[in-house]
Amino acid sequence: MSPVTDRTYAQALDRRDPLAVFRQHFVLEDRDLIYLDGNSLGRLPKATAQRLQQVIEQEWGQTLIRGWNQGWMEAPERVGAKIAQLIGAAPDEVIVADSTSINLFKLAVAALRTQPLRHKIVTDDLNFPSDHHILQGIRALHDDKVQIQMVGSQDGVHGPVQALCDAIDQDTGLVTLSHVAYKTSFAYEVKFITQRAEQQGAWMLWDLSHSVGSVPVRLNAWNVPLAVGCTYKHLCGGPGAPAFLYVRKDLQQRLLNPIPGWMGKRNVFDFDLTYEPDPGIRRFVTGTPPILSLCAIEPALDLFLKAGMDRIREKSVQQTEYVIALWRAWLEPLGFALRSPLEAARRGAHVSLGHPQGLSIDLALIQEMKVIPDFRPPDTLRLGPCPLYTSFEEIYEGMARLRTTVLEGRHEKYTQAPRVT
Amino acid sequence: MSPVTDRTYAQALDRRDPLAVFRQHFVLEDRDLIYLDGNSLGRLPKATAQRLQQVIEQEWGQTLIRGWNQGWMEAPERVGAKIAQLIGAAPDEVIVADSTSINLFKLAVAALRTQPLRHKIVTDDLNFPSDHHILQGIRALHDDKVQIQMVGSQDGVHGPVQALCDAIDQDTGLVTLSHVAYKTSFAYEVKFITQRAEQQGAWMLWDLSHSVGSVPVRLNAWNVPLAVGCTYKHLCGGPGAPAFLYVRKDLQQRLLNPIPGWMGKRNVFDFDLTYEPDPGIRRFVTGTPPILSLCAIEPALDLFLKAGMDRIREKSVQQTEYVIALWRAWLEPLGFALRSPLEAARRGAHVSLGHPQGLSIDLALIQEMKVIPDFRPPDTLRLGPCPLYTSFEEIYEGMARLRTTVLEGRHEKYTQAPRVT
Repeated sequence: MSPVTDRTYAQALDRRDPLAVFRQHFVLEDRDLIYLDGNSLGRLPKATAQRLQQVIEQEWGQTLIRGWNQGWMEAPERVGAKIAQLIGAAPDEVIVADSTSINLFKLAVAALRTQPLRHKIVTDDLNFPSDHHILQGIRALHDDKVQIQMVGSQDGVHGPVQALCDAIDQDTGLVTLSHVAYKTSFAYEVKFITQRAEQQGAWMLWDLSHSVGSVPVRLNAWNVPLAVGCTYKHLCGGPGAPAFLYVRKDLQQRLLNPIPGWMGKRNVFDFDLTYEPDPGIRRFVTGTPPILSLCAIEPALDLFLKAGMDRIREKSVQQTEYVIALWRAWLEPLGFALRSPLEAARRGAHVSLGHPQGLSIDLALIQEMKVIPDFRPPDTLRLGPCPLYTSFEEIYEGMARLRTTVLEGRHEKYTQAPRVT
Repeated sequence: MSPVTDRTYAQALDRRDPLAVFRQHFVLEDRDLIYLDGNSLGRLPKATAQRLQQVIEQEWGQTLIRGWNQGWMEAPERVGAKIAQLIGAAPDEVIVADSTSINLFKLAVAALRTQPLRHKIVTDDLNFPSDHHILQGIRALHDDKVQIQMVGSQDGVHGPVQALCDAIDQDTGLVTLSHVAYKTSFAYEVKFITQRAEQQGAWMLWDLSHSVGSVPVRLNAWNVPLAVGCTYKHLCGGPGAPAFLYVRKDLQQRLLNPIPGWMGKRNVFDFDLTYEPDPGIRRFVTGTPPILSLCAIEPALDLFLKAGMDRIREKSVQQTEYVIALWRAWLEPLGFALRSPLEAARRGAHVSLGHPQGLSIDLALIQEMKVIPDFRPPDTLRLGPCPLYTSFEEIYEGMARLRTTVLEGRHEKYTQAPRVT
């Protein structure tokens, strides 16, 4: 086999790739564009564009209000049941609703209310800023009687497993963490931390936004009580597509939605003024769901289910190993630091690379090199190939252009202006 | 002029209608279908179908993550500013986010937190069930230390204005009502009630879901502090399209979003773990908005702005007067009761008719008469023509088929099975 730095190496990997056939199911008009940001916004599946045309022109345009009787009303459960298959949950344990942040609020508040004498929320500094903001909002709602213990990562890459276990105690009402850290790609051993929380009588709530669709998740096997997650990153549900939440079956009746709305009632259409919660997962839905964005999620899920999470993970590990091998050969000598775990078992589907001129390099890649990674302050480029549509040759090409950018100093003219990704 | 019960009467009204030209901007494939449920789900504008194709295929499919730099990020403000023009608010006082119920929760909790010693929320029994559920959730969050005083309508049609004024006192933290009652179409005199709340030092929060796009709303002129509303009913934003909220400019800094998320931060992309609210209306956004459903709202707003709310209201009053005239001539003798105010000034854009066999009649209309009204328990048919796309002749035809249904006893075979609308 040719050396890892040869294009033929990538081509050989593509030829042997059992998932290569899935690439044709995505819209890929500009073949020269290297898209490595599937971890922020997944590509558009062709079937989604078709499905949306049907929803818009047929269902909204013609069926009109009757659409609620012909599939819209059950869409939160129907799409949730497909996500459930990807995360090792039962179909009636997952529902689609609102945004990840709203769902986190709902489940965190519901959980805390079951044990009002426990005053502590435990999290880490690798968790999403938005998750922190929600927790800060919950603290304010409790007049600061709830405290947040944020455990710090030692090296800024790996989760502080031992320190977290030490922090979880009898005063802890809730532990909430990202399964895969958005910045570094570090993946927690979910079962282990969940067990520790359970031993101390604390609720465990996982944010799966960066793991669903990219890393095997086995919520039931790991005995996870609560989880939330996003559908617009790896899952290719479309920009801002609604999020999901999971509540283990035996816990659903114990938890009340703190934002109860008509769509989560036992009898939605009785128009009774007194709220009585649906007996199951539906109680966590509040208002009317955004049907276009909700229906956009489903066709991509069918692709993920067909490919299978084990095969997706296998290819994903191959892809991140390949990124790391090229980093070692080409980029480490140029001053890039690996900001993701070297051990594949502890790594999600993206690879983070730090560089003092990270932001300028990111801008140069997008503006003139037709490579789209993303950037997270202060200095981190994230490279997120997706096993369903990113080829190894695209990774080769993207990494080669990244190297060229720095070798030729093309990034130097980009000022450190803040940008949006 | 011919009698009101002649088809030629309707045809004459259509010929003189200055808004008749707007009908061609909507998808109306089946000309025989009489759609009178624009108050539940507005029709699809042709421009919306085109715009969505662009968002899906161009922006998501090709622009990918860069879409956030090219219009998506500002969409909540941009669409909000257009809604602001329809409700008499400044552009920076309205933002699109989440569902009406979530927005009601945010503003109600934020308002109550400014005056924790006031323990009462005042509302009426004409308000949306979902609004009641949200208030019940807020009461539970406050460990039942907040009480809800629900003032009852005397006749089940008109809002209990005097009793509300009596109920609003120095212990009242919040007054919240629907501007137009979903069931009866009763429209409150917003300025009057708002003034009473203000005199007592209580926050006033209007739900505009049934008035926006159908009834003139002048939030600034009426000195309204807070409002929320829906975009998928009269506004034609599409099924479950995200909702809006309004906070008067001078009050924005006093109120904190109780569900703070990254999209409402001062600097969204600094990824700082500590939440600092945006100084303006943006602080009330929480998570990532559903872009497809959000972009779907905008083309319809352009049509509403072009037609102008005064002309829309003028035609709407003509339409509901016409429905009532036909009810008087044809339906009152068949046992239908008017469940909406007779006075046009106190009536929204739909007309409610009660009948002991209301549900069976509704089912017969939909199943075999190609007329789509909607039904609200226990016995009320709602007829909601929309000035932008419903012709007077369609109203004539719908009312004639309704009469035929009952005259011929076509509804008798429909059992009283619960149904969804």
